[in-house]
This record gives sequence, structure tokens and C-alpha cells, in this order.
Amino acid sequence: DEYDKPSMKTTVPGPRSKELLGKFENITKNVEHVLFFGNYKKSKGNYLVDADGNRMLDVFTQVASVPIGYNHPALVEAIQDPGNLSVFVNRPALGVHPNEDFPERLQNALISVAPPGLERVQTMACGACSVENAMKHAFIWKRKQDRNGLQPTAEDLDSCLRNESPGSPPYTILSFVGAFHGRSCGALSCSHSKAVHKVDIAAFDWPIAPFPQLKYPLERYEQENRANELRCLDEVVKLITDYNSRGRKVAGLIIEPIQAEGGDNHATKFFFQKLREICDQFKVAFIVDEVQTGCAASGKFWAHELWELPSPPDIVCFSKKMLTGGYYFKDEFIVQGAHRIFNTWMGDPSKIILLEKVVEVIQNNDLVQNVKETGDYLLHKLEGLQDKCPSMFSNARGAGTFCAIDVRDGATLLEIVEKMRNKGVNVGCCGVRTIRFRPTLVFQKHHADIMFETFDEVLEEM
Amino acid sequence: DEYDKPSMKTTVPGPRSKELLGKFENITKNVEHVLFFGNYKKSKGNYLVDADGNRMLDVFTQVASVPIGYNHPALVEAIQDPGNLSVFVNRPALGVHPNEDFPERLQNALISVAPPGLERVQTMACGACSVENAMKHAFIWKRKQDRNGLQPTAEDLDSCLRNESPGSPPYTILSFVGAFHGRSCGALSCSHSKAVHKVDIAAFDWPIAPFPQLKYPLERYEQENRANELRCLDEVVKLITDYNSRGRKVAGLIIEPIQAEGGDNHATKFFFQKLREICDQFKVAFIVDEVQTGCAASGKFWAHELWELPSPPDIVCFSKKMLTGGYYFKDEFIVQGAHRIFNTWMGDPSKIILLEKVVEVIQNNDLVQNVKETGDYLLHKLEGLQDKCPSMFSNARGAGTFCAIDVRDGATLLEIVEKMRNKGVNVGCCGVRTIRFRPTLVFQKHHADIMFETFDEVLEEM
Ligand code: FES
Repeated sequence: DEYDKPSMKTTVPGPRSKELLGKFENITKNVEHVLFFGNYKKSKGNYLVDADGNRMLDVFTQVASVPIGYNHPALVEAIQDPGNLSVFVNRPALGVHPNEDFPERLQNALISVAPPGLERVQTMACGACSVENAMKHAFIWKRKQDRNGLQPTAEDLDSCLRNESPGSPPYTILSFVGAFHGRSCGALSCSHSKAVHKVDIAAFDWPIAPFPQLKYPLERYEQENRANELRCLDEVVKLITDYNSRGRKVAGLIIEPIQAEGGDNHATKFFFQKLREICDQFKVAFIVDEVQTGCAASGKFWAHELWELPSPPDIVCFSKKMLTGGYYFKDEFIVQGAHRIFNTWMGDPSKIILLEKVVEVIQNNDLVQNVKETGDYLLHKLEGLQDKCPSMFSNARGAGTFCAIDVRDGATLLEIVEKMRNKGVNVGCCGVRTIRFRPTLVFQKHHADIMFETFDEVLEEM
Repeated sequence: DEYDKPSMKTTVPGPRSKELLGKFENITKNVEHVLFFGNYKKSKGNYLVDADGNRMLDVFTQVASVPIGYNHPALVEAIQDPGNLSVFVNRPALGVHPNEDFPERLQNALISVAPPGLERVQTMACGACSVENAMKHAFIWKRKQDRNGLQPTAEDLDSCLRNESPGSPPYTILSFVGAFHGRSCGALSCSHSKAVHKVDIAAFDWPIAPFPQLKYPLERYEQENRANELRCLDEVVKLITDYNSRGRKVAGLIIEPIQAEGGDNHATKFFFQKLREICDQFKVAFIVDEVQTGCAASGKFWAHELWELPSPPDIVCFSKKMLTGGYYFKDEFIVQGAHRIFNTWMGDPSKIILLEKVVEVIQNNDLVQNVKETGDYLLHKLEGLQDKCPSMFSNARGAGTFCAIDVRDGATLLEIVEKMRNKGVNVGCCGVRTIRFRPTLVFQKHHADIMFETFDEVLEEM
């Protein structure tokens, strides 16, 4: 019951989108990033219909946040189910008066897909608050170690109210060049993918390590890549040692399995395994940010499962396709006491109802396997594309359908993306010259074929 | 069609809540603040029914976040309206592909209730991201001034990626002792109400000014209060001057109209008018955090309307009863360029659909006037209570139904609140010894009467 192919009536944005853009601009004065308005009644499966009736194959999917396609019947049903109505009408403060079915739904929606070794979960509302609270766990855990497991002292409690040490410790979170973790002050201090996200905003002076710059395909350049990763690992150790020695202890290290906003930068499992070791050695919380990679996109439910770690990460953050924000954590990171990890809503149970269905659909339709197979096909075709036009494309790479390819330069990238959209394929960019593919989990080989036909048309025109 | 009175079957939490708490604990390991589980199917109007069938008059309302009562028919209708279905099923990235009815709904839900003089609005998803992004506007605005209106330089763009000055400026936000603005790193650096919120978490070293400590009723202690406010204003000026002189320029000042988490601390309109002047004088963004006070609770739609400012605040943040987060801002604070104020979701249009209905209900039923009248009644009765038991209660205070009263000491406070709950009235606390009243906007005098009868019963027992 999906549409069979794209169908375009105007260029994008069309006249109706442009008209709406004027109204929207007048209200928010912040619309330069708006591409077009969606008609979400008519959108279906992998097809996003816009306000002008243009029907596009969507491989950008609301910045990688649509799990099982538009208007999936299972989600429609969940919203129309009278038994769910009260949760959509009444948003509870989950930390004070959670709805009585919340524990069971958490079990179904989140614990059933918990990463191996991580059995506790805290819900939040978006990627940023998930990352911010994960960092708070790291700080609290580190300070507790430094007090030999004891509770905060009177001096801690007093000085923190003035933002002063020791209560507000000068501790740090280590992040990587090219990383993106969110846009609130803590998360943004760990983000370094694009200057427009950061410029003019106050930031913490926290350590920033180089992220591996690898050559693709990874197997072909194993030796060079290994050398590059070893240099990065050295730098991580140096930074931790240096910051620790200055009393600015590194409480946590945060990393994406694939740097997404930064340009789809991959590293090998060797690199991540070594990071796990370094974190153990220096007692640094190993925080994996799976906001973009999580929920099956990589061909595993969690991308970090690809690393075959000897022991799991300490905290794993999620959002986007998971519909709710949140993070899994190890028992070692349990925070004792009321109101330390807390806020008014602590997530939104109406999103958990939807996620419960998403997880059911993923499991019943073996969508992880679908992503793996479609992903292999997608990557193979991307490699074909770069072989055909080596002056235009390079570095095809991916895990599952979480794929990317570099374009000659930024201007050409924008030209291709715009032409693709006007021919009915909505693709996204990342980094400075990368096309990122972020299809839904129900994206199939025949969808990929449509996309590559469109690529061919676009390239012929250029 | 509301219930007529509380009806209690067990003490709270009852056996069913306790059983659920065990399950919830096993999943989240963060339940010490959970009071009971709600049955949101059976809750109605001002009555919250728990998992054990206890029906409580709710004057805490999910940390002040329920605008028009549980299961309001207008909200039920909005969710069941087939025309709205697609917005609940498909959450768009509002900064890229907003739903086509979004501008119109923003107009109805948010612009129609905009504070006088503030005609632009940015949606966000919760109080914390609203505050964080308001602060970002302040930083960007201040840096633009300091560059004489020019765009960021190449050095700015380069250095910010390393969290270094000048791109990441050492600029600051001034906040107040006892304030609460949220729990992400930026917002938390401006929060000083309780040590448990802050201890062990890294914070920015930003200026913190004293908040007036006034005697109530304000009219009776006008002179002393004025002297106290003048001292605080002096300190604000000193802090701004001092920080500015050290290159740590104060870009914004953030304040709540009534400090809520900090203990329901009021200041006079004189104080806020002077703050507006100081902000003008030093070119500091005047950010008013109406997350808890906004949406009619104060007897005005926005509590800062009570100040009769000569010119409006620069930015006004909201969330909670507004169901969506966000902030209004002046044209002077418009951020030029794409992706500077941005994130994946930028709010949630399904909440805007509900807010649209809430605003309609407020307007059609003149609920602002209802809050004013019920609030006067409530405050009058609180003053009666403290006159009757002066050794127990003091400092009855309020604006609209946003009322509070102090209890002898923290232990007695907890005893009263627990006894009230077990007799069917769910009230909240703030500060160290304050009861805060946060009823819905449909709270009536007869609800207040039930509450005060329960107070009488509790006091007789003590
Ligand atoms: S910070 Fe996550 S929803 Fe506001």
C-alpha cells in the first residue's frame, strides 16, 4: 500500500511551500534551513509528500528520525486505540506520578532491545537531554570515586550552589574533533562538527581528541588506518593524563559509533576496543552516543554491537528513531538519592507507546536483517557509482543502510542534492562534501534502485 | 462531569503503586522521587486518581504542568480528530520539513497569546532547551554588538571548533541566588535552588546576584522590602561591571517572575522595572523564565505583565502548562543564518495541536479571570490559616493561584504534605519549608474549600 515511485509537480520548494514559508518566517524568523512543508496526511512508507503534492522518496527521513516510514498502520492503530487515549491527553511527570502501565511499556519498548550488558534505562525527551544527563551520571560517578564512595560533603553541598569547586568540580568530558552530540551548553561543548552550531556560544574548556581519519574501504587501507588510529589513541591518553594532572579530571569520554553530522566518519572496532580499555584504565565513563546510529540503522540494533567489545560501554544514549530520548547505563552508574537525575517530564510516555509498536514491527518483520541486506546492496551500488565517476565520487562507506559517499566539493554536493530533490529523491548532506543516506528501516532494494536511477539522470545533466 | 470530592481507599502509595514501584525501580534505578502511579484513564478535571483507586484533589498538577485539568474533553477531541492523526503519527523535523498547517497553528496557539511587544516565537521541546536556546540568542546578540553588527570572523569560526575564544567567548549569563532554570549544563549553571540538583556536576563560573528576600504581605513591609531590593540591584550592577571589566561580559540576565523551586520568592514590580533599566544600560539581554509562572497561573497570561514594564523583556521562555517549550523574542534578537538555532525536532507539533485547544478553552471560558478570582480567594484563606495558626504558618503569598505558605520547619512541612495526601489532597513543596499551590486553571473556589477543610483536619491531628 505504498506509492510505487516519486511523482513531481513543481520544483521544490513549490509555490505552496513558498507561501507557507512567508507565514512561518513572520512568526519564527528562523527558517533559512526549511526546505519545504510536508503533507503528512498523504505521506506514506518511504515517500514524503510535500505541500505542493510532490511525492519524494525520502532517504533523509526528518534528519534520520523516522523508523518505520510515514503513517505506518501500527502507529496509526496505537494512536486510535481508545486504551491509549489517556496517555496522549495527560502527560505525567514521570518522576513523580508515572502512568500505571509505564513500567510494563518500558519493558516492552526499551528493555527488550537493550544493548547486551546494559539493563537499566532512563527516559529523557530528546538527544540533547539524553547526552546532558549521561554526562551528569559520569560526573556524579567520578566524584563518588574521588570521595571513596561517600556521599557529598557539607562543603560540596554548599559550594555547588555558588557554582564553585569542590561542589561544582572542574571535571571534564572528552570528545572528538568532528563530533556532534547536541546543542545545549554541555552537549555543544562536546560538539565540533560545524562552526555555525557553536560560534558566539560560551563553551566549557574540555579536552578534544582527534578522531581517526580513515581511508575507505577500510579493509584496503588496514595498515595506514591502524597507524592513524594509534596516533589518535595516543592523543586520548595524553589528554586524559594532562587534564587529570591539572585537577580537571576527565569524568567521561563521549563518542558516536559513526560521526554523523561531522561527515559520516568511521573508525574500526580496534579503535573502539582500545577506547574501552583506556576508559577502564583511567576510570573514565565510556559514553556512546547512538542518537543517530541506534535503532537498527547500522544493521545491528545498536551500532556499537559491531565493535565486539570485551565489556559493554558504560552509558548508551538514544533518541531520533527511538522516538523517545534516553540512555541505558550500567549498575555502577546508578545515582543514589531523589531528584538528582530528574526534571518535570523525564520523557513522554506517549512516545513510549509508539516505540513499543516500532519495536514490535522491527522484530516481527526482521527489519534488522532487512537493513543489513538492503544496506549491503546500497553500499555495493555506491561503490559502483564511484567506480563509474571517480572524479565525482569517493569514499563510499557504510554500516547497514547508514551509508555515505563523498562528492568532489561542497558546491557540487549542493547541486546534486538539489537536483535529486527536484527529481523526487530527498537526500541529506553532512560534513562539508558528503551525501548521507538515512532511509527508514523499511527501505528496500527497489527503493535503492529508484534512487540510483535518479542519480544517473542527475549525473547525465551535469 | 468532574468528581465531587476526594475519595481514599488506601494510604499513598497504596499496595498497587508499591508493586509497580518495584518493577519501575528494577528498570530505571531512579525512583526515590516517585510518590505514586497515576491512573490517567480515571483522572478527571482537578482530580488525579492513582493506581489504587485513590482519588485526590490535585493542587500540584504534575509539577505545575497541567493547564486545564485531566482528560479535558477539548483535548480528547483533538486527539480523536482524524484530521490531526498524521501529526501524532509523524513527528517532523520542524526546521526542515514542517507540517503544512504548522504556521497557522503556531499563530493560533502561540502568537494569539504572545506577551505584549513580543511577536516572534521559537518552539522548543521542554523548559531546559527553551532556556538554553534563549541564552544562545543572548550570546549571539552580544557578540554581534561587539563586532559592530558584523558576521563572525574567520578566527571566530575556527576557534569555536576548539571551544576557544574568541569563537567560544568567555561571556556569561547572570542569574540569582535561589533561581531554578533547568538541568542541562547551561540552565543548571543558572540554577541555585537546591544542592541535590547541582552537586558533582561541572558548572560555568557565571555571576550570581542575590534575589530579594522580602517580607509578606509585601504592602505591609514596603520600606524594608524596598531597601532589600535596592541592595540586590546594587549587587547586580556591581557584578555586571566586574564581569564586563574582566572580559567575561554579561550577555544575558535570566530571572523567574516568582522563584518557584527556590521557595516561591516574590519581588516587587519596582525591582523588575529597575532590572529592565539595568539591562538596557549595560546592553544585557533581559530573559524572563516563565516556564512555571506562564500560561495564566498568576492571574495574567504572563506573570511579567504584572510588572508594568516601560518596554517588554527581550526573551520570554515557557513550557509546562504551555505543553510545548519555546520562547518569544524581540526582533533585535533575531539570529541570522541557517542552522544556528536548530535541532532535530525543534518542538513537537502534536503538542501545538493540544495547546491550540488549551488556549481556546482559556479564552472561551475566561480562565485568566477565573484564576484571578480563585487566586484572591485562595490567598485570603491562606492568610486566614496563618492568622489561626501563627506558630505553624507564615508568609502566605501569591499571584493568581500561584500561591504559597511557609511552614514552621522542613520536617513539619513533610508531615503536613503527607497527611494532606493521605486525606485526598495532593500538594507540593518548594524551597526548604514552603507549600506551593499549583492548581489547574479550572480550579474553583469550591475546590479551595475542600482543600482548606482538609488542612483543618490535618492540623487537628497534629
Ligand atoms: S532538552 Fe531535551 S527536550 Fe528539551
